[in-house]
Amino acid sequence: MSTKQKRYFLTEEEIPTQWYNIQADMVNKPLPPINPKTKEPLKPEDLFPIFAEELCRQELDQEHAWFDIPDEVRDMYKYYRSTPLVRAYGLEEALGTPAHIYFKNESVSPVGSHKLNSALAQAYYCKKQGVTNVTTETGAGQWGAALSYAAKVFGLEAAVYQVKISYNQKPYRRSIMQTYGAQVTASPSMSTRAGKDILTKDPNNQGSLGTAISEAIELAINTPNCKYTLGSVLSHVTLHQTIIGLEAEKQMAKAGEYPDIVIGCFGGGSNFGGISFPFMRHNILEGKKTRFIAAEPASCPKLTRGVFQYDFGDVAGYTPLLPMYTLGHNFMPANIHAGGLRYHGAGVIVSQLLKDQLMEAVDIKQLESFEAGMLFSQAEGIIPAPESCHAIAAAINEAKKCKETGEEKVILFNLSGHGLIDMAAYDQFLSGSLQNYEVTDEDVQKNIAQLEKVL
Amino acid sequence: MSTKQKRYFLTEEEIPTQWYNIQADMVNKPLPPINPKTKEPLKPEDLFPIFAEELCRQELDQEHAWFDIPDEVRDMYKYYRSTPLVRAYGLEEALGTPAHIYFKNESVSPVGSHKLNSALAQAYYCKKQGVTNVTTETGAGQWGAALSYAAKVFGLEAAVYQVKISYNQKPYRRSIMQTYGAQVTASPSMSTRAGKDILTKDPNNQGSLGTAISEAIELAINTPNCKYTLGSVLSHVTLHQTIIGLEAEKQMAKAGEYPDIVIGCFGGGSNFGGISFPFMRHNILEGKKTRFIAAEPASCPKLTRGVFQYDFGDVAGYTPLLPMYTLGHNFMPANIHAGGLRYHGAGVIVSQLLKDQLMEAVDIKQLESFEAGMLFSQAEGIIPAPESCHAIAAAINEAKKCKETGEEKVILFNLSGHGLIDMAAYDQFLSGSLQNYEVTDEDVQKNIAQLEKVL
Repeated sequence: MSTKQKRYFLTEEEIPTQWYNIQADMVNKPLPPINPKTKEPLKPEDLFPIFAEELCRQELDQEHAWFDIPDEVRDMYKYYRSTPLVRAYGLEEALGTPAHIYFKNESVSPVGSHKLNSALAQAYYCKKQGVTNVTTETGAGQWGAALSYAAKVFGLEAAVYQVKISYNQKPYRRSIMQTYGAQVTASPSMSTRAGKDILTKDPNNQGSLGTAISEAIELAINTPNCKYTLGSVLSHVTLHQTIIGLEAEKQMAKAGEYPDIVIGCFGGGSNFGGISFPFMRHNILEGKKTRFIAAEPASCPKLTRGVFQYDFGDVAGYTPLLPMYTLGHNFMPANIHAGGLRYHGAGVIVSQLLKDQLMEAVDIKQLESFEAGMLFSQAEGIIPAPESCHAIAAAINEAKKCKETGEEKVILFNLSGHGLIDMAAYDQFLSGSLQNYEVTDEDVQKNIAQLEKVL
Repeated sequence: MSTKQKRYFLTEEEIPTQWYNIQADMVNKPLPPINPKTKEPLKPEDLFPIFAEELCRQELDQEHAWFDIPDEVRDMYKYYRSTPLVRAYGLEEALGTPAHIYFKNESVSPVGSHKLNSALAQAYYCKKQGVTNVTTETGAGQWGAALSYAAKVFGLEAAVYQVKISYNQKPYRRSIMQTYGAQVTASPSMSTRAGKDILTKDPNNQGSLGTAISEAIELAINTPNCKYTLGSVLSHVTLHQTIIGLEAEKQMAKAGEYPDIVIGCFGGGSNFGGISFPFMRHNILEGKKTRFIAAEPASCPKLTRGVFQYDFGDVAGYTPLLPMYTLGHNFMPANIHAGGLRYHGAGVIVSQLLKDQLMEAVDIKQLESFEAGMLFSQAEGIIPAPESCHAIAAAINEAKKCKETGEEKVILFNLSGHGLIDMAAYDQFLSGSLQNYEVTDEDVQKNIAQLEKVL
């Protein structure tokens, strides 16, 4: 492969000082979340029992395009940011493509993924408000690890509900959270009413992000001085993740290029929105024609096969009703290794953008994602997280199209995390025992049909 | 903890263009390696059947202080270097020490450790010479992963013998090597004469670096167009690792400081020498008074309890006779998790330096090393490799002394790698099932006594 290498960094001074809120620039704003009790549009105060107050205000803000990054958060960003923008010469050579492929390497954060960008912000706002304890859910464990470390940074106690299938598949993510000092419980558990309800109906329930969210919210509501935090889906999480795209924009300028295509893997939307929205801004405001592609797993296809409808964000119905592309909050995704993508719905901003055709979505099968991950590992030396493999697969598909047409398109994708805690998955792939999962139209329709009762 | 953060980097232009060979500046040169057949001092040609020729010349060179880094290697260095020099404010605060603690973060390399610095050089020189296949041994798997990736970069096939205890304790390191495309075999194996000899005597032999080296050398000698590569101990490996200390020297200057104490964990000596020798140069040439501390495991104490004597580098006696601090080539270290430190001897340069009191050594018990690793994880966010935990423990001990005396000493240590593939070890520590291992004087004497026959 190529020994030609190029990485682009920012100086400390160049690291962005503000996050970008695309809601302010959207022509069609996201529909409002609905308070399920009153059926009225949600106000920030409705969320105060669950989240830190500043996060509630960020969540619903459709006016301000820019939010200042607090100094304490930006100081911590400097500990691992800017993350490198890498020209993937090795991958280009392996594919024989004329495309210029770049990736933003978020795997270099101390916890190994982009999740820390929002964990630090959420822990900071909790601390500032006098909160002492935080709860959260985690799938693969990337978010849980980030929140555990961020809590330690700001002197908070962290309790994490980890989706049971991931808790068992990836015991070392639990160890990482515990090494950072967090309490970790497999979800569904018997420690909450939501968990008990699920387990009494289905004792072998392997959990999903939806069930873990229910448990974490319940603990937060019933614990004094405790707030819930979330790793994706919500608009304030995506807001914090725009640090990725804002940095990438400056770094692409240093490389003398601008992306024709921007790609992120898709679970709830925060890493996809984080890399995309700062570039999408130029599509909206200046008529640029960049394409934005969300890469979701074929086994959890809310963007490509779900419906746009109000739904709950969790299984128990504790969250507000959110206008989103969804497979129904009872949809139970297959046990793919990309645990961070096993979520039934998409965030409200992305859902509106997809509806308005400002972005696209593709679905990637599990085996295709690992084939892409293997190729990337050997070409670039970094073993990608199973989630990130979806973005890589989509980028490879676009680069192959360029090979056919001869176009020198500039492709940028987000490498959201490394896969060093997911080697069991690679092991299965190498031994040929990994499989694809099919979702039948019947599965999809069954869960979506239940949604008619929601609103 | 502190949100105060400071990292120091070099520009691409500032990355060193040469490696440093301390042998040229040593007043007492290392004694020559001996050809066991002729009993004569080794000539580079004696090593040609085993290593790439340029590496043989580097190995025995006591004249040239500087070696140019080939462009192809330096291009690859730019892919992950400079590695950050980090002021460990979080650790300082956790300890309440007036000391200024810095660490060089080699864990950010794509393969997670400093090992890539030499793997790229060795693979390059093999390729340049027309070699098509490389073999090596690996303990914990850090070196094996680095060599596997470096082989892929330069288009070589890699075969790795992994110490059996590590192969079983850390299956995911095997998966990493396989993901990079290498062939991995647990050692001792039945695929070599050396392996068969060991297994017929002791069918449950769990291996050591010494046994794996024998197997890898045997394969290299008996395979056309194949060379052996080594991850530590030898002088040319340490030469390549001086990139660490040479960068650190420039980065410390940017921080406006110079180290009073430099610390590295100690297996064979390459990471310790890599961070130390560029600073030790100023002790030798300019009379600076920096202290250099090698932190070895209490269960494999060649520097603190071994003897300075000619010994073989491997169990089967395939290597030249090396003048070194050794526990005897038949010493079988306890199954500690710091697999990279389970080696019976020290490199010839470090051995001479220790004999001449230009450096010091301390031994660290396994539990103390993990206590240090836990504290560091929570203070700095990076979970360190079990090997690196030994350096951290030694640094903490020095920082605590500063707390007692009130001295603002500047302590620099090398974080040689991250521990994300070693979470099973942390898990054992968290659950209280990890233990210390004692080495009795009888154990030491028994193996050392056998050495009398060696030369």
